[in-house]
Amino acid sequence: MTQGLIIVHTGEGKGKTTAALGLALRAFGAGLKVLILQFIKGGQNYGELDALKLLPIEIRQCGLGFTKTGEIADHKAAAAETLKIAQEEIISGKWDLIILDEINYAVKFGLITEDEMLNLLKIRPPELHLVFTGRDATEKLIDAADLVTEMKLIKHPYQHGIKAQRGIEF
Amino acid sequence: MTQGLIIVHTGEGKGKTTAALGLALRAFGAGLKVLILQFIKGGQNYGELDALKLLPIEIRQCGLGFTKTGEIADHKAAAAETLKIAQEEIISGKWDLIILDEINYAVKFGLITEDEMLNLLKIRPPELHLVFTGRDATEKLIDAADLVTEMKLIKHPYQHGIKAQRGIEF
Repeated sequence: MTQGLIIVHTGEGKGKTTAALGLALRAFGAGLKVLILQFIKGGQNYGELDALKLLPIEIRQCGLGFTKTGEIADHKAAAAETLKIAQEEIISGKWDLIILDEINYAVKFGLITEDEMLNLLKIRPPELHLVFTGRDATEKLIDAADLVTEMKLIKHPYQHGIKAQRGIEF
Repeated sequence: MTQGLIIVHTGEGKGKTTAALGLALRAFGAGLKVLILQFIKGGQNYGELDALKLLPIEIRQCGLGFTKTGEIADHKAAAAETLKIAQEEIISGKWDLIILDEINYAVKFGLITEDEMLNLLKIRPPELHLVFTGRDATEKLIDAADLVTEMKLIKHPYQHGIKAQRGIEF
């Protein structure tokens, strides 16, 4: 039996979700069953969703968009619902890899608690790989993880006035 | 006309090639034509190659494996050939995004020169996006780039004795 890894992609740089998608692609190619659960609905992530539709990788956008818009109560309700789905899917035994996209953001903004997130580690089958993405991963999550990568922003085109590019950045 | 971005994924952490694959997926989903050129043949990257076969994303493994094995002259010849293909494809106008996977490694180990790599920037059509991956990106490349992310290793399972996992790490 393989041992499931706890993987964290954090930091301010680009590539946290993108690397998780690459991981989904690699895992799928190796025959693993992959679920992607988005805690924050990636309103701009059209590109990857369209591409994923061509592959049997399941992606569910459960959360709302970033909290700049809308009522906090609505965001909390959506995050609670996403957490419930995460719990059910984690214990279901149907998946080899589950990506909890932007869950760190949901904790940071108080949409779910850190304990609720950490509890997902306790209920998982030992062979299930879990990926947690989002900036500002908590110390306890990093302590519990096997593989942690910080995506560090060295340079960004916005810094010299270039607009975001369709198909590349969203 | 869109402006092509020069993107660099560097650093010691995981996720440089994986994030490039995620980017390929996103770009493909947005309708862009994507070519992935591997300067170092990823002998272990079965997973993503199998998955990419299901999508019309072209991937060419031109280089040899990591230089731990084989004659340096063979590695140089393979890298020179990959560079030539890169030059031809860059000026061909056939692609919207070309990923030069592990090109930084090829420069670091003297398989191609830094000038040969930087020359690729000079010959590219202005709308072509180029991604350079590999640890130890040179300063001149970083200076020329629009978007640079350093993948920083915070924690790795090898550090506490867990073996690499098929479908996740290779």
